[in-house]
Amino acid sequence: MGDAGDTARPLRYADAGVDIDAGEKAVELIKAHVRSTARPEVVGDIGGFGGLFSLARLSARDPLLVASTDGVGTKSAIARIVGRYDTIGVDVVAMCVDDIATTGAEPLFFLDYVSVGRLVPETVEQIVSGVARGCREARCALLGGEMSEHPGVMEPGEFDLVGFAVGVVERDRVLPAGVGPGDTVVGIASPGLRSNGYSLARRALLEVAQRSLDEPAWPGADRSLGDELLVPSVVYAPVMAELRARVDVHAFAHVTGGGIPGNLARVLPRECDAVVERGTWTEPRIFAEVQQAGAVPDDEMARVFNLGLGMLAVVEPADAPAALAAIHGQGHDAWVVGEIRAGHGTVTLGSR
Amino acid sequence: MGDAGDTARPLRYADAGVDIDAGEKAVELIKAHVRSTARPEVVGDIGGFGGLFSLARLSARDPLLVASTDGVGTKSAIARIVGRYDTIGVDVVAMCVDDIATTGAEPLFFLDYVSVGRLVPETVEQIVSGVARGCREARCALLGGEMSEHPGVMEPGEFDLVGFAVGVVERDRVLPAGVGPGDTVVGIASPGLRSNGYSLARRALLEVAQRSLDEPAWPGADRSLGDELLVPSVVYAPVMAELRARVDVHAFAHVTGGGIPGNLARVLPRECDAVVERGTWTEPRIFAEVQQAGAVPDDEMARVFNLGLGMLAVVEPADAPAALAAIHGQGHDAWVVGEIRAGHGTVTLGSR
Repeated sequence: MGDAGDTARPLRYADAGVDIDAGEKAVELIKAHVRSTARPEVVGDIGGFGGLFSLARLSARDPLLVASTDGVGTKSAIARIVGRYDTIGVDVVAMCVDDIATTGAEPLFFLDYVSVGRLVPETVEQIVSGVARGCREARCALLGGEMSEHPGVMEPGEFDLVGFAVGVVERDRVLPAGVGPGDTVVGIASPGLRSNGYSLARRALLEVAQRSLDEPAWPGADRSLGDELLVPSVVYAPVMAELRARVDVHAFAHVTGGGIPGNLARVLPRECDAVVERGTWTEPRIFAEVQQAGAVPDDEMARVFNLGLGMLAVVEPADAPAALAAIHGQGHDAWVVGEIRAGHGTVTLGSR
Repeated sequence: MGDAGDTARPLRYADAGVDIDAGEKAVELIKAHVRSTARPEVVGDIGGFGGLFSLARLSARDPLLVASTDGVGTKSAIARIVGRYDTIGVDVVAMCVDDIATTGAEPLFFLDYVSVGRLVPETVEQIVSGVARGCREARCALLGGEMSEHPGVMEPGEFDLVGFAVGVVERDRVLPAGVGPGDTVVGIASPGLRSNGYSLARRALLEVAQRSLDEPAWPGADRSLGDELLVPSVVYAPVMAELRARVDVHAFAHVTGGGIPGNLARVLPRECDAVVERGTWTEPRIFAEVQQAGAVPDDEMARVFNLGLGMLAVVEPADAPAALAAIHGQGHDAWVVGEIRAGHGTVTLGSR
């Protein structure tokens, strides 16, 4: 090819919006955060083509790996407007590890993928610091990740955050198992939306009701609407493990898209119904704010948002008090919110 | 909360740009593609909170899991303009599994994450059909995935595609191992850009040179510039496994961002240099087209693009003929392109 073009200004990657130096600086900035999540099984350090994780310590007799991927969706747009990037990493970890924990798995490791319109090393560091915090909460190693600059496709301040979690479970301990009529549904508190329904929440609050993220979340609230919407997702995996150590859990349902009915249905045998009664738990005010702002019908609220219960556990009625005590002991609110009955696979969310 | 708002039109998720029905239709459309990738270790079917993969058949004595994540970057913009979505899934699989294969790992399973501005089930099906094809080529199971609609953040036709691969390798078979002076560098052909450098290629071809994706890739070319830029990435994992079965491979380097020098440096001991001589292999025409369109300097071409070598293998000189034969036997072009010398960790790409 030789020297190409005689008159045109030579084009370099940076001219096309990809800054290799910024990428290298970001890698330096995140190293300490990544290392803060190390588990003894991790082999080697950052920089290889793949992250290595030893299975030699694995004591399982018949182990199954469990894997899940999820992203933070358009919650990233709230972080961008508010200019706060250090919590959304917790959300992506929670969405992924709590998915695999519903099968009964212990989280082992996590990988993150950050795409940005323009790579600002300090912003990426904040994002990854949240991912690392989430990994420490979930007790899993941040084994790898990728940051990718998408000039011309994403706006300079735009970003997306995607995660991937792998865990392990004994085959004969996989959930759901043994869900049946008479079982009790216990709900574990979620202080906010986790990472679901943000397109609807943004439309209702910011477009229909024309609210500002700077104003108080509601009259008398001690924080702004933006901060309220950025409340990080609870990482339930540790309390789920604790709960399983104390009582015979029949199923967990992670309340994400589809809401309580959609996700409880995923663990319900065909010959059972589930009835969850609203009013048995405290619904955080933010859900009422979204509903009011957009005049969102009750049924739509219920299939889009967690309404304040981010994780459901199905247990025998006799185990319910011990289950509540175990959850409270881990610092989370929890309530008996419903029951399993003979039926046909239907979930009813009883109106208040 | 009760009925909220008296005058406003009730807002539903679909009004905010998230179409749950389209999501459910897309899930139906992709099922056959996902199932086409099944391996015997996969437990259960689509629809659980996490994908399950049994380790019971694993014969490794001291197994390490290896994981990597990557995306297709702005190659997605080419697919969008051309309106062809059935090959880019191969790219995301190749980027991830070939990363883990460089450590010597056998790919086990893969997960994909597709984000879209507006969810068109048939488009998602095309994307996932390519992912499934890539997984079949890599002989790994498509164990799970997520599709996510990002209205208001991504444009309706915009999409991003991210992947995660997990494999396994015996601890005492991890690469790189034994790279030393006198070793030979073998390059395996890449017909195109894989999934790297598209921001620069787009800028050079479409903006600086104002070329159209509909026109022939170059005078006399039998396909369009768009089709040429969409040539799917080679999935090297199978040929890498074959190569290792035949000869003592000291290292693999996956030529992604950073190009040949940047990636060969990642497997080079501090006391070695590597010299790769351009002109020893056939550089596909598309690289010259990009360089000429943007007057891109030679050094920038070399650190952004693979220049026609997507994977490098470092072997002993005596093994080079067998290595070439093994690669040719799998249907890929390959050449001796360089050597390892005593030095200080520097890679030189000799000019032609």
